[in-house]
Amino acid sequence: MAKNFVEKITDMDLDFPQWYTDVVTKTDLVDYGPVKGTMVIKPYGYEIWENIQKFLNDEFKKKGVKNAYFPMFIPESYLKREAEHVEGFAPEVVVVTYAGGKELEEKLVVRPTSETIICEMYAKWIKSYRDLPVKMNQWCNVVRWEKSTRPFLRTSEFLWQEGHTVYSSHEEAKNDAVEMLNVYKKLGEDCLAIPFFTGKKTESEKFPGAEDTFTIEAMMHDGKSLQSGTTHDLGQKFAKAFNIKFLNKNGELEHGYSTSWGVSTRLIGAIIMVHGDNRGLVLPPRVAPIQAVIVPIGAGNEKVESVVNSIEKDLLNKGVRCMVDRSENSPGWKFNQWEMKGVPVRIEVGPRDVEQGALTLFRRDTLEKQTCDINSANETVINLLDEIHKSMFEKALKFRDERIEKAESLPEILNVVDNKKFARVNICSDENCCLKVKEETGATSRMIENENLEDGHVCAICGAKATRTVLFARSY
Amino acid sequence: MAKNFVEKITDMDLDFPQWYTDVVTKTDLVDYGPVKGTMVIKPYGYEIWENIQKFLNDEFKKKGVKNAYFPMFIPESYLKREAEHVEGFAPEVVVVTYAGGKELEEKLVVRPTSETIICEMYAKWIKSYRDLPVKMNQWCNVVRWEKSTRPFLRTSEFLWQEGHTVYSSHEEAKNDAVEMLNVYKKLGEDCLAIPFFTGKKTESEKFPGAEDTFTIEAMMHDGKSLQSGTTHDLGQKFAKAFNIKFLNKNGELEHGYSTSWGVSTRLIGAIIMVHGDNRGLVLPPRVAPIQAVIVPIGAGNEKVESVVNSIEKDLLNKGVRCMVDRSENSPGWKFNQWEMKGVPVRIEVGPRDVEQGALTLFRRDTLEKQTCDINSANETVINLLDEIHKSMFEKALKFRDERIEKAESLPEILNVVDNKKFARVNICSDENCCLKVKEETGATSRMIENENLEDGHVCAICGAKATRTVLFARSY
Repeated sequence: MAKNFVEKITDMDLDFPQWYTDVVTKTDLVDYGPVKGTMVIKPYGYEIWENIQKFLNDEFKKKGVKNAYFPMFIPESYLKREAEHVEGFAPEVVVVTYAGGKELEEKLVVRPTSETIICEMYAKWIKSYRDLPVKMNQWCNVVRWEKSTRPFLRTSEFLWQEGHTVYSSHEEAKNDAVEMLNVYKKLGEDCLAIPFFTGKKTESEKFPGAEDTFTIEAMMHDGKSLQSGTTHDLGQKFAKAFNIKFLNKNGELEHGYSTSWGVSTRLIGAIIMVHGDNRGLVLPPRVAPIQAVIVPIGAGNEKVESVVNSIEKDLLNKGVRCMVDRSENSPGWKFNQWEMKGVPVRIEVGPRDVEQGALTLFRRDTLEKQTCDINSANETVINLLDEIHKSMFEKALKFRDERIEKAESLPEILNVVDNKKFARVNICSDENCCLKVKEETGATSRMIENENLEDGHVCAICGAKATRTVLFARSY
Repeated sequence: MAKNFVEKITDMDLDFPQWYTDVVTKTDLVDYGPVKGTMVIKPYGYEIWENIQKFLNDEFKKKGVKNAYFPMFIPESYLKREAEHVEGFAPEVVVVTYAGGKELEEKLVVRPTSETIICEMYAKWIKSYRDLPVKMNQWCNVVRWEKSTRPFLRTSEFLWQEGHTVYSSHEEAKNDAVEMLNVYKKLGEDCLAIPFFTGKKTESEKFPGAEDTFTIEAMMHDGKSLQSGTTHDLGQKFAKAFNIKFLNKNGELEHGYSTSWGVSTRLIGAIIMVHGDNRGLVLPPRVAPIQAVIVPIGAGNEKVESVVNSIEKDLLNKGVRCMVDRSENSPGWKFNQWEMKGVPVRIEVGPRDVEQGALTLFRRDTLEKQTCDINSANETVINLLDEIHKSMFEKALKFRDERIEKAESLPEILNVVDNKKFARVNICSDENCCLKVKEETGATSRMIENENLEDGHVCAICGAKATRTVLFARSY
């Protein structure tokens, strides 16, 4: 039986949370797992993640980072060695008490992040400055028991990569945290078509145990911010807690300087909420599982079949992820279906087109159609995919830049964030002023845009001398 | 300080278990994790796994299998739905009782394998024969709390892939189990240079809950067998336990027919124990993290440097995983080190060689050296890598085939396995005879070579009519 209807997606301007839920479930990205707060990443969602992995693995390799795998179970005592770290993660941990038919002597924590176990191993491996830097990354699952969950954005278990490095000087570690932030920014620019804000977190928003945390923040369609990845300068904190010592060039024992950095399947949530529209997903071409879908029109027409087969073969040969929808459904249904699933380019091939040596290309991002010569279809599609990537990035950049507003008081901040925008605020160095904003407006400090503010500005909250410009927004 | 010594590896013929431990730890493949029975897969080991992943992902794609990700935590009740399944896995499971600061209402099991949770989801997704077949695979960690553990071979947590399919007929499911077995066999032939025995398991060695289990078995250097992967025809057992029903072409509701299949990081153990020798690892070129190591001789010689750089660049461009050892260590130390780490080809470039337009290639597998023209180094190395792959496979095949012996009684079986060989035994259909062999000799039935034995043979154990030929061996 051919399908003739497409599932309805809630209007994003009427009910954004429901729009999100509709999109993630109806486009086959994800389903809810049987245990509360867990998700099943379905093939269409997982392939996006695989494309992100490929991009990052290439970038990591350029930076000399090697992939490895560390155990998931961490002795509970490890988590307690770094005071801020345990305080930050203890409320969310999942604990194993029973294994192989016996009560365990020491409880095990399922990794919420792996600084502790990786630092324990690094302490064993690192002896001399000659062993440094060490730069490893792992792709794995992590677990944080969250009260309120949403697919991709916040789930009890999620997939991520976590990089962990040790250097022989703080300078190098600081550089690493910034360099890796730039890798994530590049991921946004060159792969996800997302213009990330990048900057340092204020004190209250730092990773538990970090000296400094840097973040990539993306503005969602509803004007909220999504923290999409972080890098941490851990200084000597974890090295001291885990006794990572190396013999330096002067023959003295010194604690190492470490960093960590990660992005997760949350990025898929960012892609959805930055680019999506009322028809559903709009996938950036470089992560889209299907970059071009070919829809033959006029079933059984031999000439159409032959053109379709030849374009499919050519595109696949050129490395374009393309497929032909040969199902029994009507062309109209197929159009709707693949639009909802966000396929960047649709190639329509009909009998009349074929007679004229032409075919029709449809762009998901702009909803525009164009005619193209059959003989140059290959090249045109490839160029179009590039064009779509650029255009999606520009559109998101424009959207974002139009929604940042200066605010000089609490009421102004409230007004800006109520209008679904980010507030740019001059503020003093006292973190309590940031917390005050959170309390009064629900917006948190997303990142420091400028930490060397010139003289002559006053803090929007307390009126003291402002030393920095901070972006505030409501967030996921 | 240059290093001048290489760590000593125990003689494999004197103490094979110690040889194995020396090899895995001294070549930087793996380290022991802090929790008993866990392992840290270091970059040199992890890259082997990544190369296996690439090979299999390509093969899976050809079979229409899609990657996905299912949650790690399984409600304890799921495991109990299939009677044989729970009996098989209950003794090894790890149980979570406490999460997010609270006792859980229902205990969660950390997946030992994912049939249960995946079938639960499939039941939700599958409605009609049009939805079938479903073929998904996931790359993930699984946990089985084992009493006695060894890196790669048996660890509390390990990495694997698990494929799960549902078909609308038993015929198709049976075919799938055999087809995927052949994919694994191909992995051995084309990637790991391991000639796997492939066949059906006898009743007592089946996967808990399977109608039939098929296995790839490899003969290790000590004559023991390593079960290196399995595929399972699950018939309707899991479909019935999890209520996977589809509307068939006649409009009737019918339970689906499912399969599952997996290989794990255990394969790295197989690579080590099939190919290794007293110098350490011998890595098959197609999975080796470094396929060719270039050792410059005569530090600081500009002509040598220039040849080395150009060969490195050329090989990398051709897709050969190659590196130059530019460390301060002596050439002799480098030779030993990279031999121990099993790099298939060493390229020695010395001043005298360069004068003569030649360089020396060393093959790790045969320990042979050959001279090669600098100008054709590229091509020669690439051909040599292929040649090494073939030759390693042939060597392992010969080793294996020379160590299979017919045995016609319990004492003969004992004698064969004591001589580090596999026993080929005609045996009746009563599984108790297989169990008797295990009891008396410590060898288990590895697989059925022939289940349609012609008339006229007697069971080596009980003297009744033999119906099949089974391979017996001691195993890991």
